[in-house]
Amino acid sequence: MWHILEDDLESIAIGAGILGTGGGGNPYIGMLRAKQMIKEHGPIKVLSSDELSEDDKVICVGGIGAPTVGIEKLRGKQSYYALKAIEDYTGTKATAIISNEIGGSNSLEPIVPASLLGLPIVDADGMGRAFPEVQMKTYFVYGVPAYPMAVSDEKGNTALFTEAVDSRWVERMARAVTIQMGGVACYALAPMTAHQIKTTAVLDSLSLTKKLGDAVKNARALHEDPIDALLQVHPGRVLFKGKIVDLDRQTTAGFARGQVVLEGMDEYQKDKLTVEFQNENLIARLNSEVVCIVPDLICIVDSERGEPITTELLRYGFRVTVLGFPGPELWKTPEGLATAGPSAFGYDVEYADLELS
Amino acid sequence: MWHILEDDLESIAIGAGILGTGGGGNPYIGMLRAKQMIKEHGPIKVLSSDELSEDDKVICVGGIGAPTVGIEKLRGKQSYYALKAIEDYTGTKATAIISNEIGGSNSLEPIVPASLLGLPIVDADGMGRAFPEVQMKTYFVYGVPAYPMAVSDEKGNTALFTEAVDSRWVERMARAVTIQMGGVACYALAPMTAHQIKTTAVLDSLSLTKKLGDAVKNARALHEDPIDALLQVHPGRVLFKGKIVDLDRQTTAGFARGQVVLEGMDEYQKDKLTVEFQNENLIARLNSEVVCIVPDLICIVDSERGEPITTELLRYGFRVTVLGFPGPELWKTPEGLATAGPSAFGYDVEYADLELS
Repeated sequence: MWHILEDDLESIAIGAGILGTGGGGNPYIGMLRAKQMIKEHGPIKVLSSDELSEDDKVICVGGIGAPTVGIEKLRGKQSYYALKAIEDYTGTKATAIISNEIGGSNSLEPIVPASLLGLPIVDADGMGRAFPEVQMKTYFVYGVPAYPMAVSDEKGNTALFTEAVDSRWVERMARAVTIQMGGVACYALAPMTAHQIKTTAVLDSLSLTKKLGDAVKNARALHEDPIDALLQVHPGRVLFKGKIVDLDRQTTAGFARGQVVLEGMDEYQKDKLTVEFQNENLIARLNSEVVCIVPDLICIVDSERGEPITTELLRYGFRVTVLGFPGPELWKTPEGLATAGPSAFGYDVEYADLELS
Repeated sequence: MWHILEDDLESIAIGAGILGTGGGGNPYIGMLRAKQMIKEHGPIKVLSSDELSEDDKVICVGGIGAPTVGIEKLRGKQSYYALKAIEDYTGTKATAIISNEIGGSNSLEPIVPASLLGLPIVDADGMGRAFPEVQMKTYFVYGVPAYPMAVSDEKGNTALFTEAVDSRWVERMARAVTIQMGGVACYALAPMTAHQIKTTAVLDSLSLTKKLGDAVKNARALHEDPIDALLQVHPGRVLFKGKIVDLDRQTTAGFARGQVVLEGMDEYQKDKLTVEFQNENLIARLNSEVVCIVPDLICIVDSERGEPITTELLRYGFRVTVLGFPGPELWKTPEGLATAGPSAFGYDVEYADLELS
């Protein structure tokens, strides 16, 4: 058990930006909201999955929509509204809150309802990174039903999806409603048990965001290389160093889709890297050869400061380093790959473990 | 109190086609489904609003989507699924069923859940005609909340809209989900009381469909003019007689939208009539002069047989008569006109009562 204090939020936001692989909502904005909550309601208690009891009812909350919209249309208490709607529908009160995905501002989204209700949050999530679509959660891959699910906006609209053919149909319906709500909204899932969390979630991922962010912050303070520091905390490797020379980014069908092209610097001077994204970075091609692909993580960071650059902030001329990290093991099973591997995003590429050296 | 027998269905379908003013779902297909239900479960009891008791819980059901899709993607038990979802959500069992709109196949939609549950249906509806959008119901105009509302498809998906800014937001969310469901779906509203029905519904509209249809059938049998027969049962007038010479019809954003152009025959030989529609016929212009506009009814019928021709069946070359009927009085108040008058459809035309001679 530990507590999130106001001072921890910057580290968590940096780490969540790394694990977000471009998406999950802008972590800086997520940090500002969390700061406000902790200022008003005090530190947030964080439980490891081992500390949950059999009677616990853990409600998952998160954001849905395009990050390009999310930096203009800020979130308020939508995840709290969605949580109340699912509590009413299921007749069950939450005793703890868990994140849908540890990447981006969604890592901090549980702090909003947890603060308002005085509840702890769980050190785990449903992705161990960020993914763009609702069905892409380890919860659902390993047997938690994707419905009922509640989606709420800031205006006072709430939709509940109470029956669905499968989790992909929940995504279809929820995405369509989110677009009507203005392109971003928040959602809540039916309460999960401690057993469900232990067997289906990616564990200790909130701690990991803090470790990653602390490493970056310490390196900055000591004038060391923040990218080396990141790679010491979490196994991964540099895929590329270069400058953004082309960017094609559209907000379409409820997502930010496109690709970014990098021209190499230093040892990559003669090379080109292309990264395609759907909210999150999906595939990195070095001179047309695939060097990293989902469910492994492709993270674009500022070369100087190690600051993660999310999809909506990509910009011509940025000097960046592209990092690759192995995805969580839960995504590398046949079921995991079917849901969020290359083929799930339409890539005719066989998944192979990221080469670490 | 009366009963709908199998033999009544043809008349009701004809009358519902007239009152549908082009929309409400194909009445012939609606009739076939109702026939099947009555064959299996027996005649349907119909109560007038006066025969409801204080304890009655009346659930409204209907279809949503584009009629152009509805003739290809047939309805099954979707309205029953939606009704069960709303019963579960509200914790209240229906004691009677009422139609969302008396036009088109929606006049007969209540027969599906009524047959399956052995319940009566109420001789009334929420429009007294058909309109394309969810918020366009006298129920909502006169104080019944538009939510919770359940929308179900044939595949096993159900969405509940439990909170909304207003009835227009229910329409937005429900339309978006309906498009994902394939373009047509069925819905159910929360139980209404007898008092709500008496003060907000268009009363005796199911009886009216039967009277209209009986008049057409009798005229055919006696080789009399079915159009004269219609106008004797229900006050209205002939707006035009002619041939369809142009048709622009698209299925877009969940609706069938477009316009049909008629070249005059007989006394209209030198004239042209243009009718614009959004599922239902909205405005009729005789040589560019508006001769009938919502909420009044514009009905296109086969000139020979008086058979109503719904939007999805309009076709080049058809010889048709266009009839105008005054809309229900509940639509002619300021609130009614604000919701379903000319301005609600973007027409900068002041509503004026249909001239009957």
